Amino acid sequence: MKAFGYPEPLRLMVDALKGLPGIGPRSAERIAVWLASKAPKAKAAALAEAAGQLHSSVVACRECGFFAAGDLCEICASADRDRGLLCVVEDAPDVISIERTGCYQGLYHVLGGRLSPLDGIGPEDLRIGALARRVEKGGVREIIFAMAADVEGEATASFLREMLQGCRVVLSRIAHGIPAGTGLGMADRLTLERALSGRRVVE
Amino acid sequence: MKAFGYPEPLRLMVDALKGLPGIGPRSAERIAVWLASKAPKAKAAALAEAAGQLHSSVVACRECGFFAAGDLCEICASADRDRGLLCVVEDAPDVISIERTGCYQGLYHVLGGRLSPLDGIGPEDLRIGALARRVEKGGVREIIFAMAADVEGEATASFLREMLQGCRVVLSRIAHGIPAGTGLGMADRLTLERALSGRRVVE
Repeated sequence: MKAFGYPEPLRLMVDALKGLPGIGPRSAERIAVWLASKAPKAKAAALAEAAGQLHSSVVACRECGFFAAGDLCEICASADRDRGLLCVVEDAPDVISIERTGCYQGLYHVLGGRLSPLDGIGPEDLRIGALARRVEKGGVREIIFAMAADVEGEATASFLREMLQGCRVVLSRIAHGIPAGTGLGMADRLTLERALSGRRVVE
Repeated sequence: MKAFGYPEPLRLMVDALKGLPGIGPRSAERIAVWLASKAPKAKAAALAEAAGQLHSSVVACRECGFFAAGDLCEICASADRDRGLLCVVEDAPDVISIERTGCYQGLYHVLGGRLSPLDGIGPEDLRIGALARRVEKGGVREIIFAMAADVEGEATASFLREMLQGCRVVLSRIAHGIPAGTGLGMADRLTLERALSGRRVVE
């Protein structure tokens, strides 16, 4: 006897959802079934429209690697930013995190990850060459390293520091220490060590 | 100073993903960012295509309420099924579960949920009228209730039993008892009670 399954469009939807970050086969089925039965009719259409636009119109900014709808991202294209200041981050969402603080006025450089020899990710897999070329073009006076405060983030920062030695550019890194709103009891040993060694004179 | 965010197509994608079952704002952002940066280019296109097709071509089967690409679902349209047997289930995925056993040859009736006065779901919100009309048309000799073995599932079964009294149709329900592969130690009191009261003579 032939056993029946979902119709073809539903199976396609499950396949398209499966493998998105955090979505396994069970969630994919649940979402597809919900879209096909309980969701407002417009929801699937909105998803189709959004995914189509994303596919056709979001690219990496030619300069900094952040998301752009055209050749340059909104930040690189803005006339209000300080073009002498580059903040190097691992991934595009890090740009959003910094933008949300509202207190940074320079440009960015998105590496697209961090050095990780164990995962086979070397300098040529990141936008490191592009950073060197940006600096060579001149006009940059300070580069701020804002990679993660972990082993691979540190290794990436070390690599960049060596590479950029000799360029007449100030290299700095964001501060590591006690996060806002927490006491010393919450801090692990390494955080506390960094908070101590990074102490600043009170003026 | 103006703080920048994601470009418009990415924001649209986050909005389209947000609110899907199990996807909150954080996961929506993570998926959209992944699609726009790390995913194979074809992934977003496949998602757009699938969601578009789902939107335009999946409807509820006119007869049983299961998913259909046309007027009738594959099961109702099949010539191989026993049209005298109706299995009443809560939701479309239940049909798939039963089909996977490969041992049921009848048709289905998908209610689209279960009675739940606390959530404001009454008989008129389910495909209960459609079930009555199907039975009135004649040709059905047995109706199998396969709702969940919980309070609301039981209440729904009771309601249907009363409604269908007087129709000359055998009403049955799937067995409740000890699940395959587990011992009595794993069974809760109610399951064990049902397993006992549902005992069958060994032949």
